[in-house]
Amino acid sequence: MKQVITLSIGGSLMVPGEPDVDYIKRVAALLRKHANKYKFAIVTGGGAAARLYARAMKKIVNNEFLADQAAIMSTWQNAYLILAVLHDRAYKTLPKTFDEAAQALETNDFVVMGGTLPGITTDSDAVLLAERVGSRRVVNVSNVDAIYTANPRKNKGARKISRMSVDALVAMAAENDTRKAGENFVFDMLACKLLARSGIEAHFVSGKNLKDLENAILGKRHGGTVVTPSSLA
Amino acid sequence: MKQVITLSIGGSLMVPGEPDVDYIKRVAALLRKHANKYKFAIVTGGGAAARLYARAMKKIVNNEFLADQAAIMSTWQNAYLILAVLHDRAYKTLPKTFDEAAQALETNDFVVMGGTLPGITTDSDAVLLAERVGSRRVVNVSNVDAIYTANPRKNKGARKISRMSVDALVAMAAENDTRKAGENFVFDMLACKLLARSGIEAHFVSGKNLKDLENAILGKRHGGTVVTPSSLA
Amino acid sequence: MKQVITLSIGGSLMVPGEPDVDYIKRVAALLRKHANKYKFAIVTGGGAAARLYARAMKKIVNNEFLADQAAIMSTWQNAYLILAVLHDRAYKTLPKTFDEAAQALETNDFVVMGGTLPGITTDSDAVLLAERVGSRRVVNVSNVDAIYTANPRKNKGARKISRMSVDALVAMAAENDTRKAGENFVFDMLACKLLARSGIEAHFVSGKNLKDLENAILGKRHGGTVVTPSSLA
Amino acid sequence: MKQVITLSIGGSLMVPGEPDVDYIKRVAALLRKHANKYKFAIVTGGGAAARLYARAMKKIVNNEFLADQAAIMSTWQNAYLILAVLHDRAYKTLPKTFDEAAQALETNDFVVMGGTLPGITTDSDAVLLAERVGSRRVVNVSNVDAIYTANPRKNKGARKISRMSVDALVAMAAENDTRKAGENFVFDMLACKLLARSGIEAHFVSGKNLKDLENAILGKRHGGTVVTPSSLA
Amino acid sequence: MKQVITLSIGGSLMVPGEPDVDYIKRVAALLRKHANKYKFAIVTGGGAAARLYARAMKKIVNNEFLADQAAIMSTWQNAYLILAVLHDRAYKTLPKTFDEAAQALETNDFVVMGGTLPGITTDSDAVLLAERVGSRRVVNVSNVDAIYTANPRKNKGARKISRMSVDALVAMAAENDTRKAGENFVFDMLACKLLARSGIEAHFVSGKNLKDLENAILGKRHGGTVVTPSSLA
Amino acid sequence: MKQVITLSIGGSLMVPGEPDVDYIKRVAALLRKHANKYKFAIVTGGGAAARLYARAMKKIVNNEFLADQAAIMSTWQNAYLILAVLHDRAYKTLPKTFDEAAQALETNDFVVMGGTLPGITTDSDAVLLAERVGSRRVVNVSNVDAIYTANPRKNKGARKISRMSVDALVAMAAENDTRKAGENFVFDMLACKLLARSGIEAHFVSGKNLKDLENAILGKRHGGTVVTPSSLA
Repeated sequence: MKQVITLSIGGSLMVPGEPDVDYIKRVAALLRKHANKYKFAIVTGGGAAARLYARAMKKIVNNEFLADQAAIMSTWQNAYLILAVLHDRAYKTLPKTFDEAAQALETNDFVVMGGTLPGITTDSDAVLLAERVGSRRVVNVSNVDAIYTANPRKNKGARKISRMSVDALVAMAAENDTRKAGENFVFDMLACKLLARSGIEAHFVSGKNLKDLENAILGKRHGGTVVTPSSLA
Repeated sequence: MKQVITLSIGGSLMVPGEPDVDYIKRVAALLRKHANKYKFAIVTGGGAAARLYARAMKKIVNNEFLADQAAIMSTWQNAYLILAVLHDRAYKTLPKTFDEAAQALETNDFVVMGGTLPGITTDSDAVLLAERVGSRRVVNVSNVDAIYTANPRKNKGARKISRMSVDALVAMAAENDTRKAGENFVFDMLACKLLARSGIEAHFVSGKNLKDLENAILGKRHGGTVVTPSSLA
Repeated sequence: MKQVITLSIGGSLMVPGEPDVDYIKRVAALLRKHANKYKFAIVTGGGAAARLYARAMKKIVNNEFLADQAAIMSTWQNAYLILAVLHDRAYKTLPKTFDEAAQALETNDFVVMGGTLPGITTDSDAVLLAERVGSRRVVNVSNVDAIYTANPRKNKGARKISRMSVDALVAMAAENDTRKAGENFVFDMLACKLLARSGIEAHFVSGKNLKDLENAILGKRHGGTVVTPSSLA
Repeated sequence: MKQVITLSIGGSLMVPGEPDVDYIKRVAALLRKHANKYKFAIVTGGGAAARLYARAMKKIVNNEFLADQAAIMSTWQNAYLILAVLHDRAYKTLPKTFDEAAQALETNDFVVMGGTLPGITTDSDAVLLAERVGSRRVVNVSNVDAIYTANPRKNKGARKISRMSVDALVAMAAENDTRKAGENFVFDMLACKLLARSGIEAHFVSGKNLKDLENAILGKRHGGTVVTPSSLA
Repeated sequence: MKQVITLSIGGSLMVPGEPDVDYIKRVAALLRKHANKYKFAIVTGGGAAARLYARAMKKIVNNEFLADQAAIMSTWQNAYLILAVLHDRAYKTLPKTFDEAAQALETNDFVVMGGTLPGITTDSDAVLLAERVGSRRVVNVSNVDAIYTANPRKNKGARKISRMSVDALVAMAAENDTRKAGENFVFDMLACKLLARSGIEAHFVSGKNLKDLENAILGKRHGGTVVTPSSLA
Repeated sequence: MKQVITLSIGGSLMVPGEPDVDYIKRVAALLRKHANKYKFAIVTGGGAAARLYARAMKKIVNNEFLADQAAIMSTWQNAYLILAVLHDRAYKTLPKTFDEAAQALETNDFVVMGGTLPGITTDSDAVLLAERVGSRRVVNVSNVDAIYTANPRKNKGARKISRMSVDALVAMAAENDTRKAGENFVFDMLACKLLARSGIEAHFVSGKNLKDLENAILGKRHGGTVVTPSSLA
């Protein structure tokens, strides 16, 4: 069977305000271009609608679980858009379990999921999916072009990191994750830990830079960051 | 058991642009006020997010089924908001079937559903729910204050109808339903037909006028339209 | 992928009193004959057992929803018979959703469904299935050989219509659908509306005339009626 | 909680040809009469429609599993009729598992199931249900008025047995179960074995004799047969 | 399609105390060796963990149903181990129904299930699975090398039976099945009856003797017992 | 409604080798004692069988996801034992979602769940459950009697902490979680983060000390550790 690449696509790329159809089509075209060599397991994030519903829920009951659950329904909508744009070669429904996703790749080139449980990020879902389908490479596609030594918006001396170990990423996450709203670090601790335990390589690229995304898929050099499972980075 | 009132709440009332939390809370307060006398079976429509996703889907694959299905996920989100605001007395999940909804009312005062199948409006879902739970009254809550003899925006001589038979409504629907986007008649043919077959009374009121909504729930006179199942209107 | 033809097979053809095994086998043989060129998405109606159970239910509780739901179980039984007769090339279970049905056609030549929701005819289910799987042609197989200008049993001057637009069908349905038991028009308003919105062509043939059915499948001239999506008929 | 009585109602009583609404209503009235003292867990058999579908299936593929599965759908229809006639106090859907049935009795006086797996009789399902919900008494309601020392239609000397041990029943089943079509013994080996392992008492009465059925429910003397779990009969 | 062989693998072979990984791998290697000629439908039993949980449950509530249900979860775990060892060619999840299992074999060479209902042995499940997927041969793999004329541990004159009819097996089961704990006969009555009704051949071999297992799969002579469906043995 | 206490019960307490029925009964007796004042939402861990299956899986395929999934089935078995011992007042099945668990508490005093997703600990599941059902207090019941300033087995100067903030717990987890097998810190980072975001108080007590467990349930002083959501500890 072809190698499986797992993608975690940030919701705000797909749905910055309303769904960005043009962007979705361009990503799909890129994936199709390489679908004779790879299969793709894709997890989509929430985006603008998810944020609006989560915020509304918090005003209604101030329950984090319920806010997450409402937001997760937006990740399903986003997954359904990706499923549609890749329809002829994609699994025709959103799998309810990771096992179903693994089976789906037997007969289709693409499988698309949204979120699963409240409290779990779609980045973590993506690494779980990667574990289940046997991906050796997760590509995290967000609106940040790489991991930096510090927040580049705040610190002029921040340098882009092209290659680092997952241990270093964890250390950085521990330091930067102040757990304040709007300041999430690029990859949460659980996702990092799952990468580490399964020895999966992660690539962090900007979704706006499709050339970087393509290179990450192909395992070539790109302008983002490669996180290696061991400390051999 | 208490009598069950079925409500079909228009999505654009709840989510005109983003979710209108204040409005949702005011409707909930009204329902709670009468929850010692009635139980409520509630179906929520789609609103702004539903329209954005449906439109995006049509640009992606131009498939009406997939567009509806994406929009239906927004109706679930809206239902989840209502479930949350009524949480202490509401069934804690969105029922997957009308049978489950009927059972839910045995132990809870409120049950909330979104849409079911593509091609079926949430108005039709509401009448099916009313049939299943044995409601004698459906209240259609939209952003139109009543049914008129003609479109009041286009025809100065249009008169509000305070009472009419479901047969007259069907005739009006047949005439006005030009099936062009953006010109949907207030209640679709299937919903009308289901009302007719089960002898359920329907009230059409503006969701903006909570006094009318309250009177419709109580079976009192209101400024909207009552549609009677027989031609005895 | 092969083109998908969607069939809506009337229950009274399959189960006029008890299941007509010989008829079921002959239809299956016809479908197999063309299964190297086409895939088939099939929806089965209720037939005699469905009517008996619906009637019994109405005597028990006089609830249209429950009567429909009991009848729908017969449509599943009928679907299961078709599934069995086409077993080696058919999806091995009745799909629970239209998405599952679409996926089923990736690896099988036939997929068979019964009804879905109370209040929705299996004709409407068939058009929804056609939308989901991308059929361009629905063949409605009933015990009527075509659509006529009037009811031929009552009106000697009734003429068979060989080709008409879906708009004309809707107009005819509106006029003839008196909504009295036993006088259902050949295709309900919802089914018509779904055809219209998706530009799907519908063929109405008698299930007793397998030559007509074959020609409808192949898109050739037949003795029934072709309903075209636009008014260019 | 009230004691739970489990009933296994033969399909041919409920649906001798078509559904016998009058009979169904009379049984329901009897159960309601005692519903303030007992709760009822009910399993319905197949009846005439089940036999027609099973026979049709065998002509189509000669597969016992598929024939059973088609027949099971009729048991669900029959269960749905009983659910409807007891609707105000019954669980509003057919439970998918025995656990769900057990939970249903927490908030309802009646729960109704049809068959489960091909190859398993609804009599066996009834004993499993009795085990799960903690019934101490199963009442088998069929068109035979009791267990006899021999087939009374063939043997003039056959005597009715009013009380026997489950071991004796097993011995009799082993001898009489010639496994030829149309000669099923009144209770299959698996059902007997399940009775034996759980020490559940079984009453065999004719469904035509509602007085016997009532006495069996109440644990009073009746004209049928009592099978005791131990050999202390 | 390739012929399907159904295997019922005893839990105590796979999990004598803890899971016997080496044994599981050796069985898998044998099955893979023949997977270009056959497909395999596999049912796994419970083993040591199942027994511990069933025993604990009986001490807690003394309910046979609940004890079985706890034990069944161990059969799923065992099935998941087999699924994993055959992962690249196996269906990626445990099918929830026999229909799903049948479909799974369309696109995979192996499908693995655990138990289904309390009260039903995994041997019976295996014959039901064989019926559903159209196997002509069930291989029962246990820690007994064959069926004997009497219990060889107790009776020195006990002779191994190399070939017998299913009727003879039933007779033997009726005589030996004393229904006392720890003295289960090799194949329960329901499993026998299902074999008989569907004309499926059963092979009884020791799982410790992989050569016998291989020969049973291939339909060759082996040191165990062949049970033929008719009395032509 | 009564206040809900959420318990996370460690698997090795319940199943140190085989299921410890006596221990399970004693915990149940304690919970029943307070069930007129509180409701209980309970999550059970894996224990010995879980570890054996996870280890076997890793030898078979070395896939962390599959190992977790096999182990999760043991958590379900453990949950089923607790469900059984509290049967008369417990929800009768393992809820499939947190929403279902929340609804279950409407009509029952106890609801029991096992694990959910691979990669997620049952401690995290317990905090998610607490969020969903609105618990203000989670009691973590393990074989450690409290949180210490250092590992007491290795460091003689380690002091027990009776009260600390969740922030301090996170810091400690970050330092001690060396992510090496067999050295898991008492509460994982995700569980901590979920506590923090929802302002839920956590109590860490030894399951061997039922008096401490009782005091933790009642919110009284105990010999374990209290983790407060804010830094006001």
